[in-house]
Amino acid sequence: MSPMENDTKPVVLAFSGHDPSGAAGLQADIEALARAGCHCVSVITSLTTQNTSEFKALAPQSPARFREQLELLTEDISVDACKIGLIGSIQLVEIIADYLKDAKFPVVLDPILGSGSGANLATPALIRNMTKHLFPHTTVITPNLEEALALTGCNETATALHSLLDLGCGSALITAADSARGEVINTWIGRTREVHSYHWEKLPGTYHGSGCTLSAYLAGRLARGDPVRVAVEKAQEYTWHTLKHAQRIGKSQLHPERFHQ
Amino acid sequence: MSPMENDTKPVVLAFSGHDPSGAAGLQADIEALARAGCHCVSVITSLTTQNTSEFKALAPQSPARFREQLELLTEDISVDACKIGLIGSIQLVEIIADYLKDAKFPVVLDPILGSGSGANLATPALIRNMTKHLFPHTTVITPNLEEALALTGCNETATALHSLLDLGCGSALITAADSARGEVINTWIGRTREVHSYHWEKLPGTYHGSGCTLSAYLAGRLARGDPVRVAVEKAQEYTWHTLKHAQRIGKSQLHPERFHQ
Repeated sequence: MSPMENDTKPVVLAFSGHDPSGAAGLQADIEALARAGCHCVSVITSLTTQNTSEFKALAPQSPARFREQLELLTEDISVDACKIGLIGSIQLVEIIADYLKDAKFPVVLDPILGSGSGANLATPALIRNMTKHLFPHTTVITPNLEEALALTGCNETATALHSLLDLGCGSALITAADSARGEVINTWIGRTREVHSYHWEKLPGTYHGSGCTLSAYLAGRLARGDPVRVAVEKAQEYTWHTLKHAQRIGKSQLHPERFHQ
Repeated sequence: MSPMENDTKPVVLAFSGHDPSGAAGLQADIEALARAGCHCVSVITSLTTQNTSEFKALAPQSPARFREQLELLTEDISVDACKIGLIGSIQLVEIIADYLKDAKFPVVLDPILGSGSGANLATPALIRNMTKHLFPHTTVITPNLEEALALTGCNETATALHSLLDLGCGSALITAADSARGEVINTWIGRTREVHSYHWEKLPGTYHGSGCTLSAYLAGRLARGDPVRVAVEKAQEYTWHTLKHAQRIGKSQLHPERFHQ
């Protein structure tokens, strides 16, 4: 039996860092995309030295090698959506932007500015470059509240949402935990500036890779043809369940369980 | 609800290369281990520039960074089995051997000497180092026939099997396609020198990442406590089904479908 061409899964290209613990980064993408019914292909932006309690070092790839890997991959494999996570250097931002300039597929940007354990992963110059060169190609940007405020200079969610669209993003989902109320409140703004809030029970514990899981699954749903708002809802629901069933693999932050049935 | 400690999945540590196409290397490990009911953690040995038809470049990690990633990871996360794939440099062989010298868990070594598309990925010095330093820690080695002959200097399967044990491996599974007979014939030798052959229908087409899939799933079954011979059988069966349902993601070699139900 030869493989059935019409049965082929959508392909999502991830630009991601590698996290040895497998909780975040590329492994989060691979696993969440598998559960979204997609196949992940990837070009690694950075290797990291980290575990579930500490982020120790970031080593971005050489730009020349990154570009060569991207070119050889995309000559061979056709892409249905793209997810951008940790980047690590301005040169890589520019190569990704150059690749996306003719893209006809949805792009999810998870603008990672710091690690869960508090390490700073983006310089002001990198943030300026990302804003200028990647936002115009972005279908959905998925910052947490702290990142959204840093990216826009705003001081609260409502204005930050509009500002992200003013800066060129097609739509934006800002995630925010409100510990006092025991809730996670995520707020989405669509292309026509409609705003919708989602309330989730705030789960106990801290998690490594929840943002990567959310943005990857979202990209997978977009690759499968979901409208943006539907994909945004399904990605939140999926992610919440991966946290609900999180596993204690390391000593500190929990691993989202991306294969829970 | 807090995570149930006693429900935690076994952890398999993969030392693997990264393949952007996601057919082979680390992604094969992550996916096959997920299907084996395990969680993959990983330290990347090498980044590669390749697609489904061409292997263009190999960039091994800096030994110092590799060692630091491994140390930080294993301080935090306890490992139940280890799978070694593409290595890429002698220095990394030595760091892995040093890590394994006190290991109490099973180790699967997939001795990758060349790419499916014909690139040479191991020098004679690297092969000597791997033989001397890694074979004594190996529970199961999984070369294809060509690799087994190159590693042992033998000229046929039966003597190569014994030679791999003489060189220190606990057991060995040699995989071999026999196109004339339309069969894949895999031959296993156990610790007590019993030999068993497995015959599989040879599927049409060529596949990218079948060896990685086999060795990762095998490591996963060992992490779950299967006896070696049981794990060897289950890994072959799983791998055959991933090939049977392979997907045409790229233009040349097919992608094993590791999530087929």
